Amino acid sequence: MSKAYEQLSGLLEKTMALQTSLILFEWDNETLAPEEAGSYTAKVIGILSEEYYRAMTDKAMEDAIEACEQDLSLTSLEKAIVRETKEERERLVCIPSREYREFAQLTAESTRVWMKARQEKNFDAFAPTLEKVIQYQKKFASYRAKEGEALYNVMLDGYEKGFDMNTLDRFFGELKETIVPLLRDIKEKGRKIPSDFLQGDYPEDKQRLLAVMIGEYMGFDFKRGVLGVSAHPFTTNLHNHDVRITTSYNDHVDSSLFSVIHEAGHGLYELGIADELTQTPVGQGASMGMHESQSRFFENIVGRNENFWVPIYGKVQELFPEQLKDITLKQFVDAINKAEPGLIRTEADELTYSLHVMIRYELEKMIVEDNLDIQKLPKIWADKYEEYLGVRPANPAEGVLQDIHWSQGSFGYFPSYALGNAFGAQLYYHMRKIMDFDGLLREGKIDQIRDYLREHIHQYGKLKTSRELLKDTTGEDFNPSYYVQYLKEKFSSLYGLS
Amino acid sequence: MSKAYEQLSGLLEKTMALQTSLILFEWDNETLAPEEAGSYTAKVIGILSEEYYRAMTDKAMEDAIEACEQDLSLTSLEKAIVRETKEERERLVCIPSREYREFAQLTAESTRVWMKARQEKNFDAFAPTLEKVIQYQKKFASYRAKEGEALYNVMLDGYEKGFDMNTLDRFFGELKETIVPLLRDIKEKGRKIPSDFLQGDYPEDKQRLLAVMIGEYMGFDFKRGVLGVSAHPFTTNLHNHDVRITTSYNDHVDSSLFSVIHEAGHGLYELGIADELTQTPVGQGASMGMHESQSRFFENIVGRNENFWVPIYGKVQELFPEQLKDITLKQFVDAINKAEPGLIRTEADELTYSLHVMIRYELEKMIVEDNLDIQKLPKIWADKYEEYLGVRPANPAEGVLQDIHWSQGSFGYFPSYALGNAFGAQLYYHMRKIMDFDGLLREGKIDQIRDYLREHIHQYGKLKTSRELLKDTTGEDFNPSYYVQYLKEKFSSLYGLS
Repeated sequence: MSKAYEQLSGLLEKTMALQTSLILFEWDNETLAPEEAGSYTAKVIGILSEEYYRAMTDKAMEDAIEACEQDLSLTSLEKAIVRETKEERERLVCIPSREYREFAQLTAESTRVWMKARQEKNFDAFAPTLEKVIQYQKKFASYRAKEGEALYNVMLDGYEKGFDMNTLDRFFGELKETIVPLLRDIKEKGRKIPSDFLQGDYPEDKQRLLAVMIGEYMGFDFKRGVLGVSAHPFTTNLHNHDVRITTSYNDHVDSSLFSVIHEAGHGLYELGIADELTQTPVGQGASMGMHESQSRFFENIVGRNENFWVPIYGKVQELFPEQLKDITLKQFVDAINKAEPGLIRTEADELTYSLHVMIRYELEKMIVEDNLDIQKLPKIWADKYEEYLGVRPANPAEGVLQDIHWSQGSFGYFPSYALGNAFGAQLYYHMRKIMDFDGLLREGKIDQIRDYLREHIHQYGKLKTSRELLKDTTGEDFNPSYYVQYLKEKFSSLYGLS
Repeated sequence: MSKAYEQLSGLLEKTMALQTSLILFEWDNETLAPEEAGSYTAKVIGILSEEYYRAMTDKAMEDAIEACEQDLSLTSLEKAIVRETKEERERLVCIPSREYREFAQLTAESTRVWMKARQEKNFDAFAPTLEKVIQYQKKFASYRAKEGEALYNVMLDGYEKGFDMNTLDRFFGELKETIVPLLRDIKEKGRKIPSDFLQGDYPEDKQRLLAVMIGEYMGFDFKRGVLGVSAHPFTTNLHNHDVRITTSYNDHVDSSLFSVIHEAGHGLYELGIADELTQTPVGQGASMGMHESQSRFFENIVGRNENFWVPIYGKVQELFPEQLKDITLKQFVDAINKAEPGLIRTEADELTYSLHVMIRYELEKMIVEDNLDIQKLPKIWADKYEEYLGVRPANPAEGVLQDIHWSQGSFGYFPSYALGNAFGAQLYYHMRKIMDFDGLLREGKIDQIRDYLREHIHQYGKLKTSRELLKDTTGEDFNPSYYVQYLKEKFSSLYGLS
């Protein structure tokens, strides 16, 4: 190890340790911390975050990065770490520390304001705070923007390198063109799919057994992972030997089941990252979209594929004989694939999900680029839902107030959800060419599918961007057509329209 | 707030935040972290610990302490915080940073070595490591020792201010004189107490309900606290609004039950510390002994008192009708008080517990003051058990290798366990004078007992030493006679010897 890199490495150890502690606090808050711990623990978290900010923006870090950039002896891994560190540093250092602190305070509060407004179904109670959050986000984007660069492109690039409004307009355009009419067809001419049996008296302890069984079947290693419970399912990790997923249990058995498959998909990604990368700035998934591609790949392309259930549906029936003993595999698989336009993104099915995201994308563009009057948001939101999905929210709680993201200042983040679906479909069409995808699933050889993804995607962490991973794996740049084709084929067939 | 104190306070915020993160990692390790996370997480913990060490020993901290000491405008709380900070700093700064790191590495490993040796029942496998740990501990004590001060006194004072070998020799002397013969009498002439029914098919979910019920009954506030599960029960806290206790469940219902009462006793102490003290260096219990006094007060003086069970034994019977419906309150209370000499400290009953501690105290004195040849430890250990308790370990796993403490370098710590019992008894005899202790318990007014302790002990945190708390509460300096008297009266009566 060169002297310059050793210096940087020492500084990074500290920032990584602080970041890991923040991740643990977040995990603990979501899964366990007592109700009234809030403000006291928030203060501790605030201090550790500031310590992280200070260490990253410190002159010593700048010097170490510069020394490394001039050092020709660095390995390619070391170079990548320098590059990521520099980017993270620039992301932070361009924001004056006073504004950084102000914004941290604002979002600590804005989440609470949003939560209350949602409870009260009152958009006006949230609007002034949202307005402030937007102003900060625009200001922060302007600090990072290149000459003449659109602010929303800066935001998009922050979540998904190399993706801008041009690419996304084309992507969502193609999607809208195909899915909106398909959805109308299904409504008018599609067959009815019964799915009542997925709801009922599914005991929590058995759902937990099912969750563990499915996690193990997918290859989620419980010696290096944990399954917890939280209001909103999520995945996090301290490093690649401690990966944590959560779910929540209710009377819809498919709800926790597909949460687990989804989060275990994220988990497999983190477990698959190479040991030498973990606890470094390149030791996480390539991007939010690539992460979502893996979770949705397992949730939908694998988990809602009939062949996936062939080796294990019998065990599911054994767990819930009362509810499922008379339900055939075919009936079960049809039910878990049922598509029905709804108001809530997190409850959306595979077909309609990306339309929810598209609406947010269109609104974010208007907010950031066209300075949309925030007061108009609820109505435009409702109009778009009516136009694309044929449903209209009765109040802002089931409309514009449903997501936490904007209250946290995450603008440009939503599109990654839809991109993840598209990345996954592109990978899927490629994999079908080189392996007997359905056959492997049918024979219970899901490990071969997982290992393929580990080899081509997971192990690299942030060494490659999502576009590079797609290109290197499928031989083709990002191409949204696969996703549209996948949805069209699958749902036309499911609803007897083809 | 004065300028000098503001400076110190800013530095302390960081050290407290780091300490809190270390506490959370420890909690997580004991209760949840996956099996193979070990070495990766250990590295993160190591870095955060070093960060803590660095912040405490930094010149800026020294300067801030000095400035505060010269500042006459400090409040008494601020003065106490300065005093505690200075002590903690001196404890760390006197150790050269190289040795501090070496010892941290040694204990990280020594715990594993000890664990393996215990599994293999092989003392020789642990002896060389133990020898090293002892040498470090002696060296560290010598750095802190005043001219001519005995090293073991330095160690004792580190855990319990104002207690030295003189005090402890008298304390254990009195104990030995009374308890050893009493135990022989019980064995020879005492009546037989049936307790088989405490073991059996006690379902874990019901034991968990019992644990929560008892915790709530004692006033452990679950809005500010958590009950978890770990191999060895313990209590920890992030601050006074997040206090965490654990238990473990097995087929002895009294095992988890009294773990919970014990840990909730610790928990009530932490919950009772004043808000203005928490997240400062005086925001923990006064000492390890005073902490243990509260846990054992609730476990034994309250929890094994017949009157405690009068209002709630019916509910316990309802939870476990199969096992307890024919067991009277009297039979239940007799059984949970049964005294039987055994080999394992953590399983010891109220009467014999302090004898286990006494043996460790006598051995530690020999190790530190008389340079006892470590090879002789297993035999001396066995001889002392035979002499005081009438039992002899068949192997080192149930003898000298049973406790983790020495592998961690905790010499001088054990006596606090016994002192805690004595502090509790002294408080108890005082409280009986000023309130109808048994009557309150019988009427379910345990809150009045808890509130008394909160008012006189808990709220002060480290503002007073354990001796000061005893003096201010009972009007008397530490007096071990109450404890001996308590044991003698209680167990003579229980076994029909009086």
